[in-house]
Amino acid sequence: MSNKINRQIILVKRPSGKPQPDDFSLVDASVPVPEEGQVLCKTIYLSLDPYMRGRMNDSKSYADPVKINEVMTGGTVGQVLKSRSTNFQQGDIVYGYGGWQDYWASEGKALRKIDPELAPISTATGVLGMPGVTAYTGFLNIGQPKKGETVVVAAASGAVGSVVGQIAHIKGARAVGIAGSEEKCKFVTEEFGFDACVNHNSPDFAEALKNACPDGIDVYFENVSGKVFETVMPLLNDFARIPVCGLIALYNATELPPGPNLTPLLMRDILVKRLTFRGFIVWDFAAQEKEALTELAKWIKEGKLHYREDIVDGLENAPEAFMGLLEGKNFGKLVVQVSDHPAA
Amino acid sequence: MSNKINRQIILVKRPSGKPQPDDFSLVDASVPVPEEGQVLCKTIYLSLDPYMRGRMNDSKSYADPVKINEVMTGGTVGQVLKSRSTNFQQGDIVYGYGGWQDYWASEGKALRKIDPELAPISTATGVLGMPGVTAYTGFLNIGQPKKGETVVVAAASGAVGSVVGQIAHIKGARAVGIAGSEEKCKFVTEEFGFDACVNHNSPDFAEALKNACPDGIDVYFENVSGKVFETVMPLLNDFARIPVCGLIALYNATELPPGPNLTPLLMRDILVKRLTFRGFIVWDFAAQEKEALTELAKWIKEGKLHYREDIVDGLENAPEAFMGLLEGKNFGKLVVQVSDHPAA
Repeated sequence: MSNKINRQIILVKRPSGKPQPDDFSLVDASVPVPEEGQVLCKTIYLSLDPYMRGRMNDSKSYADPVKINEVMTGGTVGQVLKSRSTNFQQGDIVYGYGGWQDYWASEGKALRKIDPELAPISTATGVLGMPGVTAYTGFLNIGQPKKGETVVVAAASGAVGSVVGQIAHIKGARAVGIAGSEEKCKFVTEEFGFDACVNHNSPDFAEALKNACPDGIDVYFENVSGKVFETVMPLLNDFARIPVCGLIALYNATELPPGPNLTPLLMRDILVKRLTFRGFIVWDFAAQEKEALTELAKWIKEGKLHYREDIVDGLENAPEAFMGLLEGKNFGKLVVQVSDHPAA
Repeated sequence: MSNKINRQIILVKRPSGKPQPDDFSLVDASVPVPEEGQVLCKTIYLSLDPYMRGRMNDSKSYADPVKINEVMTGGTVGQVLKSRSTNFQQGDIVYGYGGWQDYWASEGKALRKIDPELAPISTATGVLGMPGVTAYTGFLNIGQPKKGETVVVAAASGAVGSVVGQIAHIKGARAVGIAGSEEKCKFVTEEFGFDACVNHNSPDFAEALKNACPDGIDVYFENVSGKVFETVMPLLNDFARIPVCGLIALYNATELPPGPNLTPLLMRDILVKRLTFRGFIVWDFAAQEKEALTELAKWIKEGKLHYREDIVDGLENAPEAFMGLLEGKNFGKLVVQVSDHPAA
């Protein structure tokens, strides 16, 4: 290959609160040499997702943290440059966890082949990838939407939320989005077809959400927490289901909010309204991944499922884009274009 | 009948915080006359249960509040004095919602016939009644205990908790109780056969609970909330289930606890550990009532299920006994003996 430098973005400091530019460093490394059974890939797209904030902390969670001076973790779409695995050929487009870098070597079994005929390959980071499967499995297994019910989706213009609302529609439920600007709300109703969308940065957010849900809320798909969650709570109907997928409003918090302690109100609502809260990670439903991807691709083909990507150019811009993601500055699935497709 | 007076305990004032003696009043009323299809019953046992505290408030809940100057609501075991229903005969022992009074008239369909040969008739208010069915349905449907798992039960010496822990055992799980005194804990392990029981009023409660759960907690049956809940939370395992049955520590609260607001910690645990919280009321599983009562009676007969009753003598003592219940002063299922059996 022509470029023998492997640019990497590594974590040099654990953020306290909001990540800062100097928590990351762009360094040059050598291109890895694949071992027997491995595949060398060139990154085309890097997926930026909220979960990455958790990996920057040195705390126990469902996955190990990124180590200091280690390449930031991340899902990537790449092209196979050299294969020492019988399952892949040079030129194949694959999805894997390459991280924030130009090249990565991977065991073949950790890669998923992408069909470029099916949809743009960048969608393997979004609607036809982890976020899409997250939306499908979490919403259907935990949310269990029924015809005519009202589904409220936080972060409705984002990679997961936009899919949840559209599946709600497909299943015959009413979809109400919550997003962070009038522009996003407009897109959510006009392009994603939600029945309504409410701007949580508007001063009349609570009133607007209530008006948008005249029959209350039967499913609340939680991506956000904080003020959005507190506004949703009083509107929940008896037997409402709350799949807890993300809590982006909390990820940069350095301390707990001031009192009073609202936990008793939450517990009382869980009891009196017989609510179901259930947290999940996409891996919990790994057995349904194939089903989810097949259904999602079918709905895209049928014109029932739309998506929006926010593509940022250049690996070097990944930290800034990621910092913006945590503040809702992205508009659609956030992806970094690391190199051209097809790879040069 | 010889006694023509129907003593009633009515609600005269809504309590703010702990109920007080002058929230109740003992009044004399006339014995009701049953209409066509109705049955006149004489109360033998009155069940006192934590849910009654909620009915004293004028707030929206899953049931209507008791009105001011209305008889306090409550489950009762009684004997049929006069039947104008084809389904009941004079002398039958029945369970219904007679309330805090000597006599009540009821539609026949609101009564359940009790077999005095099966077990003492007082158990229709406890292990073979609403608390037993609550324990059975909530624990099995929501808790879903698996062999070898650790089940922690709040209020373990109480009517519901004692049954939950024993069912855990029957299902091959480890049962750890939490109760409010050393004496109760001793009973929970020795008579109900829990593997361990921890006193939440002991200064080393947190340490003791941790030691009693070396493999963490897979099911936490919530009856209490407050400090007990906060101590349990860090010990919950991934995928733990939390049936939310009661929150007795909150029922008398007049204000929210001081800050910080711990809701974000709870939400984070729900997400990261993929917890399931689900509130329920026994009516939600009404279709399983018969199954539950059959199984519970079978386990009692087989010597696998034990119970303890705390019987208080005299209707006039119901308010004081109820106030004690909310502070954990009862020891076992709290029942008021209102008259003798068989009815005079």
